[in-house]
Amino acid sequence: MIRTHDAGSLRATDAGSAVTLAGWVARRRDHGGVIFVDLRDASGVVQVVFREEDAHHLRNEYCVKVVGEVARRPAGNENPELPTGDVEVNATALEVLSEAAPLPLPVDDNIDAGDDIRLRHRYLDLRRSGPANALKLRSRANQIARQVLHARDFNEIETPTLTRSTPEGARDFLVPVRLQPGSWYALPQSPQLFKQLLMVAGMERYYQIARCYRDEDFRADRQPEFTQLDIEMSFITQDDVIDLGEAIVGALWEELAGHRIERPIPRITWHDAMARYGSDKPDLRYGVELTELTDYLSGTEFRVFAGAIAAGGYVGAVVMPGGAAQSRKELDGWQDWAKARGARGLAYVVLDAETGEARGPVAKNLSAEHLDGLADAVGAKPGDAIFFAAAAERREAQELLGAARIEIARRAGLADPDAWAFCWVTDAPMFEKDDEGGWTAVHHPFTSPNSEWMDRFEEAPDRALAYAYDIVCNGNEIGGGSVRIHRADVQRRVFTLLGITDDEAADKFGFLLEAFKYGPPPHGGIAFGWDRVCMLLAGADSIREVIAFPKTRGGYDPLTGAPTPITGQQRQEAGVDAKPKPTSPANVGTAGVAAPVEHTP
Amino acid sequence: MIRTHDAGSLRATDAGSAVTLAGWVARRRDHGGVIFVDLRDASGVVQVVFREEDAHHLRNEYCVKVVGEVARRPAGNENPELPTGDVEVNATALEVLSEAAPLPLPVDDNIDAGDDIRLRHRYLDLRRSGPANALKLRSRANQIARQVLHARDFNEIETPTLTRSTPEGARDFLVPVRLQPGSWYALPQSPQLFKQLLMVAGMERYYQIARCYRDEDFRADRQPEFTQLDIEMSFITQDDVIDLGEAIVGALWEELAGHRIERPIPRITWHDAMARYGSDKPDLRYGVELTELTDYLSGTEFRVFAGAIAAGGYVGAVVMPGGAAQSRKELDGWQDWAKARGARGLAYVVLDAETGEARGPVAKNLSAEHLDGLADAVGAKPGDAIFFAAAAERREAQELLGAARIEIARRAGLADPDAWAFCWVTDAPMFEKDDEGGWTAVHHPFTSPNSEWMDRFEEAPDRALAYAYDIVCNGNEIGGGSVRIHRADVQRRVFTLLGITDDEAADKFGFLLEAFKYGPPPHGGIAFGWDRVCMLLAGADSIREVIAFPKTRGGYDPLTGAPTPITGQQRQEAGVDAKPKPTSPANVGTAGVAAPVEHTP
Repeated sequence: MIRTHDAGSLRATDAGSAVTLAGWVARRRDHGGVIFVDLRDASGVVQVVFREEDAHHLRNEYCVKVVGEVARRPAGNENPELPTGDVEVNATALEVLSEAAPLPLPVDDNIDAGDDIRLRHRYLDLRRSGPANALKLRSRANQIARQVLHARDFNEIETPTLTRSTPEGARDFLVPVRLQPGSWYALPQSPQLFKQLLMVAGMERYYQIARCYRDEDFRADRQPEFTQLDIEMSFITQDDVIDLGEAIVGALWEELAGHRIERPIPRITWHDAMARYGSDKPDLRYGVELTELTDYLSGTEFRVFAGAIAAGGYVGAVVMPGGAAQSRKELDGWQDWAKARGARGLAYVVLDAETGEARGPVAKNLSAEHLDGLADAVGAKPGDAIFFAAAAERREAQELLGAARIEIARRAGLADPDAWAFCWVTDAPMFEKDDEGGWTAVHHPFTSPNSEWMDRFEEAPDRALAYAYDIVCNGNEIGGGSVRIHRADVQRRVFTLLGITDDEAADKFGFLLEAFKYGPPPHGGIAFGWDRVCMLLAGADSIREVIAFPKTRGGYDPLTGAPTPITGQQRQEAGVDAKPKPTSPANVGTAGVAAPVEHTP
Repeated sequence: MIRTHDAGSLRATDAGSAVTLAGWVARRRDHGGVIFVDLRDASGVVQVVFREEDAHHLRNEYCVKVVGEVARRPAGNENPELPTGDVEVNATALEVLSEAAPLPLPVDDNIDAGDDIRLRHRYLDLRRSGPANALKLRSRANQIARQVLHARDFNEIETPTLTRSTPEGARDFLVPVRLQPGSWYALPQSPQLFKQLLMVAGMERYYQIARCYRDEDFRADRQPEFTQLDIEMSFITQDDVIDLGEAIVGALWEELAGHRIERPIPRITWHDAMARYGSDKPDLRYGVELTELTDYLSGTEFRVFAGAIAAGGYVGAVVMPGGAAQSRKELDGWQDWAKARGARGLAYVVLDAETGEARGPVAKNLSAEHLDGLADAVGAKPGDAIFFAAAAERREAQELLGAARIEIARRAGLADPDAWAFCWVTDAPMFEKDDEGGWTAVHHPFTSPNSEWMDRFEEAPDRALAYAYDIVCNGNEIGGGSVRIHRADVQRRVFTLLGITDDEAADKFGFLLEAFKYGPPPHGGIAFGWDRVCMLLAGADSIREVIAFPKTRGGYDPLTGAPTPITGQQRQEAGVDAKPKPTSPANVGTAGVAAPVEHTP
């Protein structure tokens, strides 16, 4: 090593030691003949004192090597905010290893810069302690998760990333294959198929911190490539996977957030989560639960509510504590908020802080009886506001109230930013109606019905439940998985319900179904959205903060300028425009590939 | 868990225990009323005894759950070859978890199948202990390497795999970008650029087990995607990287091959390796060194040798111990072998086993003096054969002799298959002549000259040496790296020598050079060809054995059928045929990307 000591490691006990340091000039101050330089390396910062002129030309972010002797700082000059604040290094020799041009981005923990400039000069951004520590935390998170998994005999196995495109999936990233012109690989949306094949292969316990690719329209805080901690186990029940998941998050939060998660982590069924919180990823740092009013309001003449009830739908409410104190403008603001979400508005009643009397547009439309019992029915007090939602589709109304609940918490500051609230959301529905009135799989068609529905999911597909589970932290889905179907008869029945013929199944899921002919074990798994897990642990507000070289919206990389046009020669060589050869008989029957992917956040 | 015990874990001390097992039927034998089943799971095999008829329908590879009681086997029936051979499990209940169709590939450690059928049904292939153990070994190798690296404060950092195409590199895999039609990502050939950026960023110690992509014409045992253990360090010298590399291979071989590598691992310069072994990755399990005869044979009238000497070239020889005993047909076979390598033939002399007299076609052409001293000059004994190579290009002749050396060792069985011989090959040349008579970088243009040549590589570019090093195991290059240039002046001089103008440099290496303006630290690194490292540790003869789902030549995956044609809709959605928008001014100047990649095996 060019250095003998890490700058950040020096302490009073090192006084008198000769040291060679190497790092960057974080700050230079000239005091007459004496020049003070804060020297920074990966370990931290130490003050170096130059009494020669040669340090005069040092500028910020020059990379330098310094020989010197550690000394206690003169009494009164200690800096208690710095771990090395008791000492300084009296320099005897200086070598400039490389110079720095004027900086487009100051390397200063206290100055905030725009995302674009930060990403364009990410190598300067990462010299700041915050961004650097986020990446270091992620490295430790990997290590902690692997310790848990290796202690439980999991094998880390890499699966292919140049693989087969799904016939129906136009949203795979595609890669032309020069050696087979006209043919394309797809980048995998997850290792789902391969991890299930590994279970058929008898590997029993697999994990991988896997790069995944999804060509989505960019919603906030998505990346075209992302990472998941991907896990699959054989001969397990749902509880085994949940237990493992808790061990992983338990170790992560204890070691990286100093927070001991109480176990078992509470479980809430999907239907309860929707009923109580209007969300399948409820933030449990605060209450503010929803109340269903469909029965309570039966017989109402208020057209909006009556219509929903008559259609077999749902009416419900959520209470904003102290919400009656809002101005008319604020209450109107809620209408805009609801419209921005695609709702027609957000009906409300405010309860007078003194009298408890219900006021507001909806109050006029409700009967005296309904108004009298309303506060009790929804658990509101004088001074609160009550927001309503009604729809023929229960879920639509619940989700509006769920979003209102989050907004209430935000406006009222109900979520303790230092709190951690975890839950499992279990028993997700297996099926939902598709646009043509048939059934489609909510998760994927290999998700197992739970024991209650295993033999009779056909009787009420809309109510059938799956062994599918998500883990939620502070309202963020951080992982999810399911037990898979391993019985051929059950798989056939699911395909039948979904209207998938044998031929279609072979075409869509060919090689996985082929593998399932040969003694597949009961198996299941989970995948953690690793970027999001690390983001939460780092206390960051975007996954970009825990990615070394993230892309902006639209998949643009301000640092490298990717993506770019390609040359005609590249296009020709890659075989982009080659016509595929007609499928040879040898390939017929190998059949298609499945689309299912672990539903990660 | 569905089971209470692992099948392979049962011992005599478990006798009397009630157990529930789950796994696969490895073998079934009916003995009158008693049925014996070898039950296999990931932990091993145990014998299960059924006294009921219901086991009669079990077939190989059914997945089953068995409840029973462990008992000692009757005296004389123990199987000492099986860890569980002292016991059997008397079954009281049987549940078939899933059935197996007749097997296209027998799950039998003793039957070998063709590669295509193995890969097509890899999920059956991996149920065999050999293939499964190869993947388990790889998982442990990852873990061992990470332990070494984390103990030394390395951070595991993921770098992008959707990145920028190199302007000159037609051999990147390309990915059309739907959201920026006409623009393409490239899959990285290695994380080289990003790991150097991380050093500029002050991360100081980086590693990643990284997926890399190279669109090569398929040579033997190559995969379009492969994995390297990628490492970069700041403020280091070559010795620091070599020391770390030795710590990693030392831990791997000690824990996975039971072999203690003697350290320091011998170092040999690139020029010495070529001179003594005719290879930059010499197999040191055996001697058979080359001898240069250029001086010895000066003045010879044998046209082939004289021509090479006159051209300033090289004449040399390698000895095959006992090679004089070869038949005329065998000696002719060497000519065919040489021609298959592109040489004109392989001149030879055999020394009579009794008299030591030199015979053979070349002998007639050499003078008596040259013949008399020949055996001493090359270290041959009576009964040996001496093979010659001569060429105006030293390297060409040396490589022919180097290949002959390997072939000699193969035919004579000189390499102990249980031996491990490691070396570092250091001081590689910096430059070589290109076809137009200019200079090109042997490694990549960021490789640092060594201290001897730092200030004067221009004086003799053909002799200038780099801080570049490869680690070799039994004749396989398993890793390689270099110290990088961090001084702007040195980098400029290298570009000048290579004939790269400032504009070209900006176009080719733009963002890396931009980053290097801001105080880059001295840095260097190494990358291990992880597939090959694991292959050697597993004692396998192909990297396919240590890859879960490998592809065959041409990049075909017999299991999934990838790659495939894509639909017109996919093509349209992906924007494959979109015209790129003209480059916006904002993008000009961000400039191109570098091509350099760590030279991994």
